[in-house]
Order: sequence, then C-alpha cells, then structure tokens
Amino acid sequence: MITDLWLVGIGSGSPSHVTGEGMQALREASVILVPEKGEGKDDLAGLRRTLLDAAGSNAQVVPFEYPVRDPALPYQERVIAWHDEIARRWQAALQGVEVSGPVALLVWGDPSLYDSTMRIATRLTPAPKLRVIPGITAIQALTAAHCIPLNTVNGPVTITTGRRLRDYGWPPEAETLVVMLDGLSSFQHLSEEAHIWWGAFLGMPEQILIDGPVQEVAQQIVETRARARAEHGWIMDTYLMRRKEAS
Amino acid sequence: MITDLWLVGIGSGSPSHVTGEGMQALREASVILVPEKGEGKDDLAGLRRTLLDAAGSNAQVVPFEYPVRDPALPYQERVIAWHDEIARRWQAALQGVEVSGPVALLVWGDPSLYDSTMRIATRLTPAPKLRVIPGITAIQALTAAHCIPLNTVNGPVTITTGRRLRDYGWPPEAETLVVMLDGLSSFQHLSEEAHIWWGAFLGMPEQILIDGPVQEVAQQIVETRARARAEHGWIMDTYLMRRKEAS
Ligand SMILES: C[S@@+](CC[C@H](N)C(=O)[O-])C[C@H]1O[C@@H](n2cnc3c(N)ncnc32)[C@H](O)[C@@H]1O
Ligand SMILES: C[S@@+](CC[C@H](N)C(=O)[O-])C[C@H]1O[C@@H](n2cnc3c(N)ncnc32)[C@H](O)[C@@H]1O
Repeated sequence: MITDLWLVGIGSGSPSHVTGEGMQALREASVILVPEKGEGKDDLAGLRRTLLDAAGSNAQVVPFEYPVRDPALPYQERVIAWHDEIARRWQAALQGVEVSGPVALLVWGDPSLYDSTMRIATRLTPAPKLRVIPGITAIQALTAAHCIPLNTVNGPVTITTGRRLRDYGWPPEAETLVVMLDGLSSFQHLSEEAHIWWGAFLGMPEQILIDGPVQEVAQQIVETRARARAEHGWIMDTYLMRRKEAS
Repeated sequence: MITDLWLVGIGSGSPSHVTGEGMQALREASVILVPEKGEGKDDLAGLRRTLLDAAGSNAQVVPFEYPVRDPALPYQERVIAWHDEIARRWQAALQGVEVSGPVALLVWGDPSLYDSTMRIATRLTPAPKLRVIPGITAIQALTAAHCIPLNTVNGPVTITTGRRLRDYGWPPEAETLVVMLDGLSSFQHLSEEAHIWWGAFLGMPEQILIDGPVQEVAQQIVETRARARAEHGWIMDTYLMRRKEAS
C-alpha cells in the first residue's frame, strides 16, 4: 500500500535542473518506482543514477513494467484503462517490498505539464497522500537557451500540442504559441508570418537551437531534426512562435 | 562594463525552489546586483540572504536604485525609457566596483515569465553575454500546491494577465486559463462556468489555497485576499480556471 506518493519533477534533461526540494525528496524517499524499459532502451537510466547519487539517496529502486494500450478501445476509454493498469502495476511492483516511507516517481520536466503521472496517481485505491514537486519544463529550457521572454509585454501565451496545431491551425487570438508533443514538425504547414525559436535535446549536451522567420527556417529545422533523430535514435523538441507584429 | 550577465531564476517564494544550476551560478558570480528598496521595504532581502548563504556565495552584493516611471510619457515609450534608465543604473552602480567575473541578477520565478529583467538586459551597451537560468514559476508553484495538472489530456493552456481578463473577457478558445498580475481579482466578474484554483504566497509559509466553482468561491477568495493583504502589507496571487466541460 502506498500512503505517501511524491511526484518529483526532475527538469528537462539536465541534472542541474533539479531543485533543492527535488533533491531532498529523492533523499527522503523510501522507494523510487521506475518504469522498466527493454534492454538499452532506458535513456533515463543514466540521468536517474546521476540524480540519486548526487542527492545521496538510499531509496530502493523498484521497477514496474509499462502496459501497452488496448488499441480496440476508443481513445478516451483506452487512456483511462491504461492509467488504471499502470496504477495496478505500481501496486503490484510494491508487493513484498518493505515501504517504510514515501514512494517517489521521477517525472520529466514538471509533473503538471503534459504528463499522465498525476492522473494515474489519482486512480490508486486507497488514495495516497499526494505531493507534487515542480520541475523545470521544456518550455523554460527553451526560453532560457534562446535567451527570450516567453510573453510580450503583458501579452498572453498559448501552450498547445502538435496535433492541435495541425487540426485547428494557429489559434486566432494567440500571439505567442508554444508547441510540444509534435513529432511531425507541424509548423511547416503554417501560412502565418511568425518567428520561430526551436530547440531539441534542451538542457542536454546534444542541445540544438534554431530560430528565424518560420517560412525561412522551416526546411532547415525539418532537416536538422531528421538528421539528429537518425543519429541519436530519438529526439525531443519544443518550439515557440510569435506573430510578426508582436514584440 | 558588464561582459557576462546572468539572470538567475530563484523560484516563487521558497528557497528550495532554486535549481542546482541556480545555486552554482550564485556561487560563481562575482557581483550580484540588487534593487535598493526603502528601509524595511525589501521583502526579498531575507530570501536573498538565505540563498546566498546556502549557495556559499562570496559574490559582492551591489545595490542599485529603481527609477520611477515618467507618467508624462505614453505607456510603451514610458516602459522603454524606464528600461533604459534601469540599464544605466546597473552600469552606474558598478562604477568603481571590481568586476572580475559574471554579474548576476536574482529574478523572481522564471526570468522568461512576466518579468522585464531580460528586456532591460538587452538595452545595455556594449551588449553583455547573456545567460538565463530557469526558475520555478508561480504557475508551477500553484499546480504543485493544488496537486492538479496544468492542462487537460492533450489540451491547450492560455496564460494571461488580470488586465487582459478584464478588458477582453475569457478568451473564446481557452479551456484552461492561468491568470497572473491581477491585483483586482478579475475572476469575480466572469459569467463562464468554471472551476478556479487560487493560491497566494505560493511556496511560502503563508501560502493560502482555495478552490471551487468560481461563482461559489469568488467572494470567499476576495475576502481572504483582502484580509491576508491587510495582515502582511502585501500579497501575490495567481489562479488557474478550467471550463466546466473540460477535464
Ligand atoms: C510528455 S511531454 C512532457 C513534458 C514535461 N512534463 C515538461 O514539463 O516539459 C514531452 C514533450 O516535452 C517536450 N520536451 C521535453 N523535454 C524536452 C527537451 N529536453 N528538449 C526539447 N523538448 C522537450 C517535447 O515537446 C516532448 O514532446
Ligand atoms: C511580475 S510577475 C513575475 C512572475 C515570475 N517571473 C514567475 O515566473 O512566476 C508577478 C506575478 O507573479 C505571480 N506570483 C509570483 N510569485 C507568486 C507567489 N509566490 N504566489 C502567488 N503568485 C505569485 C503573481 O500573479 C504576480 O502578480
């Protein structure tokens, strides 16, 4: 049984993103639940080891296996069934493990941003006491790397996904648009005049940054992305776009 | 002359928000520029001292005075003139100070979010080498404290200001709306059915949280806010609202 569950935001790639609160949580946790990936597939393993060592954590690392999503179910139901199943696997993984204190999960970036861990946690019965520890998001890693403000002076900001940008286009009222979860470089189909600040592997030694008018640099980003992805076997990228007239 | 200027995001109230990168920057900085507030008015002084001590920083703390904005100028020009003047005061404050390494400024939250330090920095001549270190924003402190996701599943998020909410109402396409810089509790005039998660003094010992359907809890928030403000002499609050149908 999990009585205390801590979701620790570990930032977006650099171990130096972790906050003092995050480090202390890793030290105080009794058990750390980690997803079991196939051999050689766990890109996070190195970062996790670095963090636990740096924190001086003696927590027991307990692996759990990720279920596959049931393709027979409609999207919403499939997600819910999948979250239920993950919650069950957390509990199953802890069978026979002596849990003398908080159970922690390491969450990429900030646990509140495009991440399902918090939703899975709410499916646990009995409900544990939940604690969320913020972490630096990919958005912040992007604006910091490019040295740009997120917003114009007192201006609004919209955060969205690649899928939504493809399905609905540029939101009419959005001045600054941040796009995450975009495996298809959806910016390349835009007709709006905007400046794009793009970043991949943010916070990591492999970090790549490109910026310019979107119509002028779109092709360069698409090609750079394809090359980097082929080289590393995976890629994560995020971008911010601002309409021409905005400043 | 400032050759290296570091903007260090220090998070939104708790010294434990600061990242490893932020701590190291405070240690490596040669000078830290801090705004001079009138006697007893510097609420940040205690937090700053805590951070510099915790980091083991030996940086020289150099104060500069904040200019007042010229009320005779139109808004945009006034802001630009004010930024120019602050940049000049940074440089003036460093006259006669031996600057052997990076100059750092501590920025509340994240330097990219509703903060003018980055814009002021770009007005320095000659232009220094700028480095931005992300920090936990008030938005993250809010979602962590309430244990809520920022977005719905794959949903968009709009971040805006109190003034914009008053002037333009709820942005038609926004599902999740985060409001900052709102001294007037502008949520109380909304007719939309939404849930509100409100937080004041986030990350601090004085933290206050209220949530509920906005029409039901608006009055409670307004009263709580007025009371807390009278008690402490100041207040900072942020809130997230989600339309009823969204989840
Ligand atoms: C499932 S979401 C998780 C977001 C995370 N919780 C955060 O706070 O940033 C994954 C998306 O985050 C973005 N992302 C995360 N880390 C990144 C990195 N180091 N560089 C670029 N993009 C990143 C990408 O857009 C990716 O598709
Ligand atoms: C000038 S902006 C600075 C934002 C900051 N750069 C950040 O990343 O959060 C100030 C606004 O941030 C919000 N804020 C900052 N710190 C806060 C706190 N500890 N609790 C509640 N709101 C806070 C309030 O909405 C306030 O009006």
